[in-house]
Amino acid sequence: MKLKEFQAILAKEKIDLAILMFPDPNLVYFTQQQFSQAILAISSADVKLFITKLDRLPKITGIKTLNFDQTWSKELSKNKIRRVGLNYTSLTLADFEKLKKIFPAAEFIDVSKILQDLRSIKTSKEVSLITTACKITAKAFEAVAKEFSKGTLLTEQDVALFLEKEIRTMNAELAFPTIVAMGPNAAIPHHVTGNSKLTRGFLVMDFGAKYSNYCADMTRVVFLGKPSTAEINKYDLLLKCQEETIKQIAENKSFIELDNYARKRLGKYADQFTHSLGHGIGIEVHEAPAFRDKKIKISKNQVFTIEPGIYVKDQFGLRIEDTLIFNGKIRVLTTAFKELIVIEKFR
Amino acid sequence: MKLKEFQAILAKEKIDLAILMFPDPNLVYFTQQQFSQAILAISSADVKLFITKLDRLPKITGIKTLNFDQTWSKELSKNKIRRVGLNYTSLTLADFEKLKKIFPAAEFIDVSKILQDLRSIKTSKEVSLITTACKITAKAFEAVAKEFSKGTLLTEQDVALFLEKEIRTMNAELAFPTIVAMGPNAAIPHHVTGNSKLTRGFLVMDFGAKYSNYCADMTRVVFLGKPSTAEINKYDLLLKCQEETIKQIAENKSFIELDNYARKRLGKYADQFTHSLGHGIGIEVHEAPAFRDKKIKISKNQVFTIEPGIYVKDQFGLRIEDTLIFNGKIRVLTTAFKELIVIEKFR
Repeated sequence: MKLKEFQAILAKEKIDLAILMFPDPNLVYFTQQQFSQAILAISSADVKLFITKLDRLPKITGIKTLNFDQTWSKELSKNKIRRVGLNYTSLTLADFEKLKKIFPAAEFIDVSKILQDLRSIKTSKEVSLITTACKITAKAFEAVAKEFSKGTLLTEQDVALFLEKEIRTMNAELAFPTIVAMGPNAAIPHHVTGNSKLTRGFLVMDFGAKYSNYCADMTRVVFLGKPSTAEINKYDLLLKCQEETIKQIAENKSFIELDNYARKRLGKYADQFTHSLGHGIGIEVHEAPAFRDKKIKISKNQVFTIEPGIYVKDQFGLRIEDTLIFNGKIRVLTTAFKELIVIEKFR
Repeated sequence: MKLKEFQAILAKEKIDLAILMFPDPNLVYFTQQQFSQAILAISSADVKLFITKLDRLPKITGIKTLNFDQTWSKELSKNKIRRVGLNYTSLTLADFEKLKKIFPAAEFIDVSKILQDLRSIKTSKEVSLITTACKITAKAFEAVAKEFSKGTLLTEQDVALFLEKEIRTMNAELAFPTIVAMGPNAAIPHHVTGNSKLTRGFLVMDFGAKYSNYCADMTRVVFLGKPSTAEINKYDLLLKCQEETIKQIAENKSFIELDNYARKRLGKYADQFTHSLGHGIGIEVHEAPAFRDKKIKISKNQVFTIEPGIYVKDQFGLRIEDTLIFNGKIRVLTTAFKELIVIEKFR
C-alpha cells in the first residue's frame, strides 16, 4: 500500500534511504505479505526487499527481491547515503547499533510519524479487506449466539474455541487472542480466557478476524439466564452511550472530544470506564489514530473502534465495541446485532 | 524465573536499575504472566511492576505492583540512578529516547546477553512446563494421524484446524502459526498454510503448543497414498540424519559442530538444507542458544530443537523436528512416533 506516496515523501524530505527491519509491521503494509525475517530498503528511486529461503519468493511489482544474508549491509551501503529514515517505534536498539556501524557518517531521521499518518488514512482496497474481516467477525458472533441454547458451550474456553473455529473456517486468522469473560471476570478488560464455567450473568466476548493481513475488532455481550431490570438498565445505558458517541463522529473533531462525550453519557459509571474510547485499526489491531493524542483529529477514511465499557471490580464488566469507517459518513463495519441477547436456557 | 539471580548480577555489575518495557518477553519470564502494557524495573534491592487497569492485578512475591500511568517516570527517577540496564534486542528506539530524557545523566548498559544466558539454562519448573507443552503437541499429532483415514481432512487448513482444536482443548495455546504443507508447498520451509487440497505425497506439519507461557516445537511428516521406494529412502535418509545428530549432542560441543555433522549426513542433499539445524526454545519459540554463534556451546539444562530438512524447489520438502533437553543425557520431549506413517486411504 502507498509505497509510491512514501517514496514521494522521502524525496521531499531529502531522505536517501528508509530501512525497515523485521518485525516492523510496515513490512506487511508495503508488501502485503508476511515474512519470517526481512529488511525493506526504500529510496525515492527503488525498493529492495531482503528475505531468507524460509519464505516464498514474493512477486511484488516495483520491489526487487534479494537474498537476506550477510551482504545486505554491503548492498545498502554501496551508494552515498547521508540521511537514513528509520521507524523509531519498531526498530530495536540492537538493530540501530548495527545500522550505525554500516552508516557511520549518516544522519538518522525518525519516519514513524510519516508511516503512522500514511497508514491511518485507508485506501479503498484496505477498506474492502477490513470490511471482509468485520463481516467474518459478525458472522462468527451470529453463529455463537445460536449455539448457546444447544448446551454444548460449558466454559469461557469453549466459547472462544467455537468463535475461533468459525473464523478459521471462513479463511481468516485471529486478529488477537479471543477474550471471553464470564460475570465478574469481565471487570478486567483484558481478562485471560480460562476454564470458568458459564453461569447466570453477562458474558463478554471481545474478538476479531484477520483477513488478508487486515484486522477486525468487536465486543458483544449476551446475558445467560434471566436478567433483572437493573441489569437490563446497565446494558442499555452502555449501549445508548456507544450508539450516541458514534453519532458524534464528525470531520476535524478530536478523538479526545469524543472520549469526553462518552464518559459524560455514562453518568455515575464514568469513573468505571478505565480505558481509552477506541483505537485505529488496520494491519495492526492497535494503530494510528491514537485517541489520547490531543492533536489528532477525525479525518476521512480513518478506520477505528468505539468501545466504551463499565468495569465494577468483583461484580461485573460490560463493553460494546464496533469497528467503523468514517468517510464523510459513518459506516459501522461490525454489523452484528447489538441489543441485549438473553439466553434463558444455556445448559 | 531467576529474578534473584538477575538481581545478583545487577549488583555485581554495579547496574542501579534494569528497565524492561513491553513487549519485552522478559516481562513474561520474570513474572510468568502476560500483560497488555507494562514496565518492569529491577534493582538489586527491589522490583517494581507498572501495569494498567486492563490487566488483572498480579500477586507475585517480591514484586511491588504499581499503576502504569504518567508517574512511572517520576517513580523510577526518584533515586540517584547512574547506570541503567536495558534489553537492546527488544527496546525500541522510541522508548530509548524517552528513557534518555528521564535519565539524562545515566549511562546505559546492554543487558540482553545477561538475560539470554539466564534464560538459556532452564530451571526444573521450566523443564516441567515445556515437557507438558511437548506432550500436548505429541498427543495432537497422534490424534491427527488417526483422523486422516476418516476422510474428514480435505485441505492443509483442515489439518491445521484439527491440530489447533486438539491443542486448545488440552488447555494450551499455539506457540506459533501452524505450518501444514502439502507436497511441493513444503519446499518453502515457512509455507503459509492455505487451501491446497490433500493429494498423494509427503505432508509436512510443523506446530507446537504453548502451555503456561512455555513453547513446544515439533515437525512430523506423513505420506498420503502409497510411497515409492525412492520416496521412502529420502525420508529414511532424513530420519537417520536427525536421529544420529541427536546422538552427537554432548557437553561443551558447539552447536555449529552439530550443524556441520547433520549437513554431512544429508550427503547429496546437504545444499538443500537451507536453514539452521535448530534453536533454543522456552518463553519464546526462538530464543538462546543461537546455533549460528560459534562461541555458544552445549550446556546442561538447555532446551532446543533439532530439525534438519531437505527442500527441493517445486518438488517436495521434508523436515523432522524435535524439542529436547540436554541434562547430561539427552531427552527428546516431543515423543510422537517418527517412522514414516503411510496413510494409503485418506479420501
